[in-house]
Order: sequence, then C-alpha cells, then structure tokens
Amino acid sequence: MPVIRVTSSSGPYSVTITPGAIGRLGALARRAVRGRTAVVVTDVHVARLWGRAALDSLADAGFSGRMAVLPAGEETKAPRFLESLWSELAEAKAGRDAVVVALGGGVVGDLAGFAAATWNRGIDLVQVPTTLLAMVDASVGGKTGINLPAGKNLAGAFHQPRLVVADLDTLKTLPEREYRAGLAEVVKYGMIGDAGLFGFLEKRRDAVVAREPGLMAEVVARCVAHKARVVARDEREAGLRMVLNLGHTFGHAIEAATRYRRYLHGEAVAIGLCAAGVLSGDRALEGRVRALVTGLGLPDRAKGLDPRKLRVLAGSDKKVRAGRIRYVVPVRIGLARVGGMVSARLESEAWEAAVRGTRV
Amino acid sequence: MPVIRVTSSSGPYSVTITPGAIGRLGALARRAVRGRTAVVVTDVHVARLWGRAALDSLADAGFSGRMAVLPAGEETKAPRFLESLWSELAEAKAGRDAVVVALGGGVVGDLAGFAAATWNRGIDLVQVPTTLLAMVDASVGGKTGINLPAGKNLAGAFHQPRLVVADLDTLKTLPEREYRAGLAEVVKYGMIGDAGLFGFLEKRRDAVVAREPGLMAEVVARCVAHKARVVARDEREAGLRMVLNLGHTFGHAIEAATRYRRYLHGEAVAIGLCAAGVLSGDRALEGRVRALVTGLGLPDRAKGLDPRKLRVLAGSDKKVRAGRIRYVVPVRIGLARVGGMVSARLESEAWEAAVRGTRV
Repeated sequence: MPVIRVTSSSGPYSVTITPGAIGRLGALARRAVRGRTAVVVTDVHVARLWGRAALDSLADAGFSGRMAVLPAGEETKAPRFLESLWSELAEAKAGRDAVVVALGGGVVGDLAGFAAATWNRGIDLVQVPTTLLAMVDASVGGKTGINLPAGKNLAGAFHQPRLVVADLDTLKTLPEREYRAGLAEVVKYGMIGDAGLFGFLEKRRDAVVAREPGLMAEVVARCVAHKARVVARDEREAGLRMVLNLGHTFGHAIEAATRYRRYLHGEAVAIGLCAAGVLSGDRALEGRVRALVTGLGLPDRAKGLDPRKLRVLAGSDKKVRAGRIRYVVPVRIGLARVGGMVSARLESEAWEAAVRGTRV
Repeated sequence: MPVIRVTSSSGPYSVTITPGAIGRLGALARRAVRGRTAVVVTDVHVARLWGRAALDSLADAGFSGRMAVLPAGEETKAPRFLESLWSELAEAKAGRDAVVVALGGGVVGDLAGFAAATWNRGIDLVQVPTTLLAMVDASVGGKTGINLPAGKNLAGAFHQPRLVVADLDTLKTLPEREYRAGLAEVVKYGMIGDAGLFGFLEKRRDAVVAREPGLMAEVVARCVAHKARVVARDEREAGLRMVLNLGHTFGHAIEAATRYRRYLHGEAVAIGLCAAGVLSGDRALEGRVRALVTGLGLPDRAKGLDPRKLRVLAGSDKKVRAGRIRYVVPVRIGLARVGGMVSARLESEAWEAAVRGTRV
C-alpha cells in the first residue's frame, strides 16, 4: 500500500493511496489530528456514494461528525458557499481543535480547505480526494481557495492538510468524463518531471483509460510523489512550484472565457498542455503531447474562442508580474522551465493553437 | 525615534513609532515590500484626516496607489466588506506583488489584513495604525479577521505585516472616547508583563489622559516591545500568546451581547480586565485594577446584562476547548497565567462582577 510522506512548514503529513482507504479514515485521522469534532464537507453526488462510509469510519474512531453537503460543480467555489461553511462550523460549535474533512473533488477540497484555513484562523484539515484530479493534484500541497467574478482562485490561502486519504475505489464510481479530465494532470506530471510516466501513458493508454486497479495505484503514487517533492522545496510558490502550473495559464483563461461551464478544469488543462507544447518551439514534443492528449479522449483546442481575448484574460491571472505573463515552458518531455524565454511569435502561435489546434 | 524589530515565521519586520511617521510611509515601505502597486484601505474618518498624506508619501516613493474607503465601525468587519476589498484588489489589478496598506484602527487593520492574507493566497501587508488600540495591539502580531453572526473574529488568518508605521500625530486627532478605550490595552500590558508600566499609569494618570507626546512614545513602545516578545515565542497562539487575551473572554461576550454597539472594544476589555481581577482571587489586585480603569475614565461593568447569558456566549468563543473556558488569570500585577485553576465560585463571581462591578 503506497504511503507517501509530505514535508511542510506546518509539519509532515502522509498520503495513503489504496482501495478501501475511506474505511480506515477514522483510524488514520485519530493519529493525525488533535480534536474529535469533525465536519465532513462534500457535494451531493459524493455524499450519496461515500458520505455514510466516511461518517461511519470517523464515528468508529471516536469522532463526533456531521456532514455539510454542497451543490456539485465549480460554481460552488464562491464566497457565499464559504460563508455557508463558516455557518456550519459555527453550528457544529467547532473550536480550534475541530477538523474539516474535505470529501470530494477539487472544488470541495479547495473550498473546504479555505474554510479550514480561515475558521478560527486555521484549524486541522483532512483531504479525502474522490476524483483522479484531486488525488494527483489538489489534495496535496496546501493550496485552497475560491473563485471571484474577476477570476479563478483569486481569494484563498496556503493551508496544508494533516492527512490525505486517497481511496482508489472512488475512481470506479467516477463519471467517464471526469476521470479522463483527471488524466490531463497525470500527463502534466509526465511533461514536467517524469518522462517514464509519460512513456508509460503512451504505451498503456487503453489500460489507463480502463482504470486497471493495479495500474492506478502506481500512476497516482508517482504523481503524488512528484508533487510532494516540488512543494517540499517551494511551499509558497516562490518559483519552482510554478512548474506545476504547466498549461494552466491557457487553461484558466479558457475556463474564464467559457464561464467555467463548457470545460472541466482538467479538459481546459489538456488544451493548455497542447498550447504549452507549442510554446516549446519543438514540433516533435508538441506532436507527442497532442497525440497523447487526444488519445486519452481529451480536447486539444477550445473551438470558437478568440485567442486575443484569451491572452488578455490571462493577463489578469495571479502568475502575472508587471503585466508580463510568466509561462511554464517545456524543455523536453520530463522537464519544464518557469518563466523561460518565449518569443512573441511562439506566444501568439500558442494562443492561436489553444483555439485552432495544430499550427498552420 | 523608537523602532522595534519583530521576528516572525514570514520574516522580521520593524515597527516605527514616531510623530510624522506617515510622511515617511512610502520610503519605509519601499525597503520593506517587493511590488509598487499599493491599495490603501481606510475608513471615512481616517481617509479625511490622513488619506492624502499616506497616498502622497507612497506616490513620492514610486508607488502607484489607490484608496479603498470603508464605513467606520465594527460592523465593517463583515464578509461583505471582505468581498468588496477583494473587488477593489481585482480592479487595481493587484498581482502577487501588490501591497495592502491598512490605514486606520483595529477594524481596518483586521479586515484589510484578512484581505491581504487571502488575496492570491497572501500578499504583502503594511499596517499604519491610527488609534492607540491598534498601535499597541492589533497592528503587531499578524492576527487578522472578520466577525460572523455567530461571533467575533471567527473567520480570519495569521498574516504578519512586512512593516508597521505608527504615527503618534494621529493620536492627537483621535476622539476622546476612542483614545481612552485604547488605554485599556495598555493597562493589560501592565497586568500581564510590565508592573513598572502599570505603576507608571497609576502615577502619571493625568498626563497619560492628556496625551503628553513624549510620554506616549514611551508607552506605545513598551507595549509593542512586550507584544513583540510574546508573539515571537508563540506566533500561532499555541499557548503563551493567549496571555494577551487577558480580559478578552469577558470583553468579547459583552460586545456580542450588546451587538457590538454599546461599547468600543477597549471599553469591553476594560470591564473584562476588572472581571479578570476578580478571577485572581486577590482583593488588593482587583482593587488596583478597578481603580486604574475607572481613573482612566473607562467602564468597569456592563450594567443591565445577564451574567449567565454572558457565560454561555463566552462558551462559543475560540479559546474554548471541550466546552471549558480557558481563562487568563492574573497572578500578580505584571504576571498572568493561561488556563490557571479557577474555582467555580470565583468564575461565577467574575461574571457577576462584569455586570455589577465590585463583589458584594
């Protein structure tokens, strides 16, 4: 059973990756947190599938737990749902030693994490990611936040979890589209730091798409291990950590332009990875990325959008310093660089490609 | 000119305490922060008195600055004003290297600090306290937050400033009632760690009330130095720092019971300090505290409230663990203890005294 240790400024924590892990949530949490009052935050879909199991496991371990159920979807990452979680915590009489358990995908993790970061100036957080995307990305590293009318994740905090529990059984119940969207982040890890993983995805594409259990443990663990290494060295995203944003400058702009409705986050990232491939100026690399992305059933372009408007939207992103976008640029499969040199021509070709696909 | 250095997990920062300091705000900020985009957050009263001077000083030092003006009063520490600050920051195109300048009293400092803590997961913050209370307490130590219907400061974050600029000239323009309210926190510092300061306040009471300038530099610097020592050793309020909450358990309950309308924060704390004096079980200490508090023109009781209801309200405070209130108890003038033993009789007498004044 893979258990990965993550070091952080607020102490180390473990990521347990295994089928049936939710059944052991209570026992694991008992050792990781101080208090015994838990508020499980989840969405309507996940509540139906895994809510009972999570609450039972917590109760068996001596936690008094209650569940806050939110609507599903990106639009839940909004100030008013943050406020409603604060109200839930008040009703639960959650003190400083209470714990927030985020049971769900990235939306639940980011929102519940932000609530934990800000309740009583920060209480314990346990992440229980139930989507592939949340397992390999959102649940580890301490980024939390909500969207504002002006942009995605504009308000938020760094708040490391005390424990991450990734139950691989939850992947079985994941809708096909969401599962594939999660694979985009897996492709990203291959591109930024694990050429072997990238090659593995190319070779075992069908088995990965079919969610073969043994395979998934390996894939998730490799992604988490990579992320853990990066965030241990740059918890606050001073520089190095930005490499994890490969493709996201494009992706976030596409999500904003389509008002977070047309694409899942991972789908927008998939398009962004292809655009980042263009930035590299390396046709062969660009081709491999595009072939893998489309081969996994993910989109490689956001048809019908205006590339110039997307570029302007990206200018209001957090990664911007003094008006200039700092791109993450692939050097080769397995290596990317933050803020590398990008010619104006390649930059404009990349934004064109984000909308039209391959370069003309 | 007193300059006090504060150490914190996010780096050291200086507290400059002097008349005319706002004129040097820009020059000081230039050395303390990275970016040159500043959003000055203030309230309508302070904007009129000091807004121009602050903006000019920032502009002279090369900052592009704009001002966000909020209504004055405790009710501004609310989710909707946090949201409106987020909107201001979005309009200012504030990136990760923008800086929030909190120009005002504790309300402005707490709210603007929380906005800085959460914008882009944390940007630079400069505190420019313009009230005695904010100078000696709120501006140093990194506590930020807002009130919720369920209680005071329930949502917030620890976010240390990069710089604190305390302009003693602002004290001259402070309304009498607010100035006196600030003295309550000064009395607190005497009680928890500086018997000399307490004695000084007793002896020089009239000069202190008259705001003699030379005297104020000394008083403010002593309080800040004491707070800096405490928060350097316990930034996240794991234990020691709680000593700074002397009187606040009572004070917060009184503020909540009167819906933050009848008393200024410092006035409620003054009542709380007298009640804490009762907790000590030492009649002489209790008497000295009450004499000083009333001698400074501060209230020592919240007439007409129900002591039992106050006690229940206090039970929903952050300092509560497993339902039991952890009081800060004075041992002698100059020393207090966190979570010391309190008999049920003294506890109930203290809550009675918070409403009725001296014990029967």
